[in-house]
Amino acid sequence: MSRYIYVNGQYLPRDQAVVHVEDRAFLMGDAVYEVIACIHGHLADETGHLDRLERSLSEMVMVMPVARETLRFIMRELLRKNRQKNASVYLQVTRGEAKRDFKFPSPDTPQNLVMITYNFDFDGNKAVQNGIRIKTVPDIRWARRDIKTTLLYPQSMSKMIGAREGYDDVFMVDPEGFITEASASNAWIVTKDNKIVTRAVSTNILRGITRTAVERICRDHQFSLEERSFTPEEIYDAKEVFTTSATALITPVIEVDGHQIGDGKRGNLCRKLYEEYRAYVEGLRGEQIHWEAGL
Amino acid sequence: MSRYIYVNGQYLPRDQAVVHVEDRAFLMGDAVYEVIACIHGHLADETGHLDRLERSLSEMVMVMPVARETLRFIMRELLRKNRQKNASVYLQVTRGEAKRDFKFPSPDTPQNLVMITYNFDFDGNKAVQNGIRIKTVPDIRWARRDIKTTLLYPQSMSKMIGAREGYDDVFMVDPEGFITEASASNAWIVTKDNKIVTRAVSTNILRGITRTAVERICRDHQFSLEERSFTPEEIYDAKEVFTTSATALITPVIEVDGHQIGDGKRGNLCRKLYEEYRAYVEGLRGEQIHWEAGL
Repeated sequence: MSRYIYVNGQYLPRDQAVVHVEDRAFLMGDAVYEVIACIHGHLADETGHLDRLERSLSEMVMVMPVARETLRFIMRELLRKNRQKNASVYLQVTRGEAKRDFKFPSPDTPQNLVMITYNFDFDGNKAVQNGIRIKTVPDIRWARRDIKTTLLYPQSMSKMIGAREGYDDVFMVDPEGFITEASASNAWIVTKDNKIVTRAVSTNILRGITRTAVERICRDHQFSLEERSFTPEEIYDAKEVFTTSATALITPVIEVDGHQIGDGKRGNLCRKLYEEYRAYVEGLRGEQIHWEAGL
Repeated sequence: MSRYIYVNGQYLPRDQAVVHVEDRAFLMGDAVYEVIACIHGHLADETGHLDRLERSLSEMVMVMPVARETLRFIMRELLRKNRQKNASVYLQVTRGEAKRDFKFPSPDTPQNLVMITYNFDFDGNKAVQNGIRIKTVPDIRWARRDIKTTLLYPQSMSKMIGAREGYDDVFMVDPEGFITEASASNAWIVTKDNKIVTRAVSTNILRGITRTAVERICRDHQFSLEERSFTPEEIYDAKEVFTTSATALITPVIEVDGHQIGDGKRGNLCRKLYEEYRAYVEGLRGEQIHWEAGL
């Protein structure tokens, strides 16, 4: 358990980390967030996550609550105070507090900025080694899934529908019959002729930061990559299936709707991409936390 | 401005009304709410609102946080402390605080219960007298609009799209081309042959409590009532258009997408329904607040 949570300029003891009940995230989901993995002291794809944060804010007619360099400093300082080198860093920006009204408050309303870190054992993550089982469910979310808002109850509800039947996660299916995403990750298949397929970005899915990194790795290795939608039937017939996200990284899917994928074990391509991604995050191109220097 | 806000058993001075940042409403919109009008000391349709609260909670696998009689008591006590007889009573129930996870926390996690009252001048509400101007926009919300969740940013965003062009509100249009609702109220038309039309309830709209009361008034007066979907074109051609909600009550719509409705003034049927509704709320069938007796 982390000892400190950051709220608006203060590193507060966990139980003192509060916001006013008229905060617009609390009242109406008027907030955006990011989750960044800190793996052995490296903040994975930090720049990509902060770029996306700024884009989400912009789409919701908000600005960055503090300078980007300040955000980078706060993340490091909170990890340092919580003595964490393996953690997920959760960062949320809300439109601030105002009398409840669907109309936005004045643009000079102070935003609320909250940061929470959670211990995360990346090396001991059994799902990455052994894979997960997934159920397909209808995608019931709102239309702007490209914005990383806190409007997450539909994903939570969908995940629980899977969990009640013993599944680890869900793939959400749009009205046209194509997979959009898992509850908190992008969906990928490897076809029997070794094509790596993931859905093209649009307002229907989130542009995953790990997704972008994996696409780059595919190009660097000249793997065959296709950006297109695919159906549950293509999943059942795939050689490999996996998901990508900031904390679960690259997780193999070994069963979907009761259909075993491949031989029911993590596939070779999935393992290769995972190893390349870890090397990227922890290697020369990763962004090292300067524990001693602070910023 | 109300002096007190109720949070989990305490009537707190406004600035002390806080929740922990790991509350699931703050992090993921995992909460439901109700708004009840207190008009000249009468809580309008209190039983209907509490029935719907219980139904919303049930659909999200939650229970009432306290007994119904306790909720009734808290509303009255908060209004008394805030010296309000004309107010909107806002009531929110969340799944409580837990480590951030799409999976629901243990069912014995204490829920958070928050109640806020805002002054509301029902008699001086100019919109009810003069009408409002509305723009149609695509309905971008999630699929379960029958549950009164705090996933409200899409409505807020839609209302702002209208506001930027000078409109007071929006009518949201589903992919099939039919009106669902306004941003926070049910939509109604009166056709040129005096049929009163409102959309049938389903998962696509909220079953308005004021909507139900107005339907009852229509039946009592043997007005011709049709429950069916209608298009923007039918709106432009309607004799009257109005919206119903807990606080705006029955509000005439005098212009939609630049088309004047009728003679651009509140229609006779709209006025009649409003007067009947006010009489119902404040009359023998209304539920009087017992200011002296407390409960």
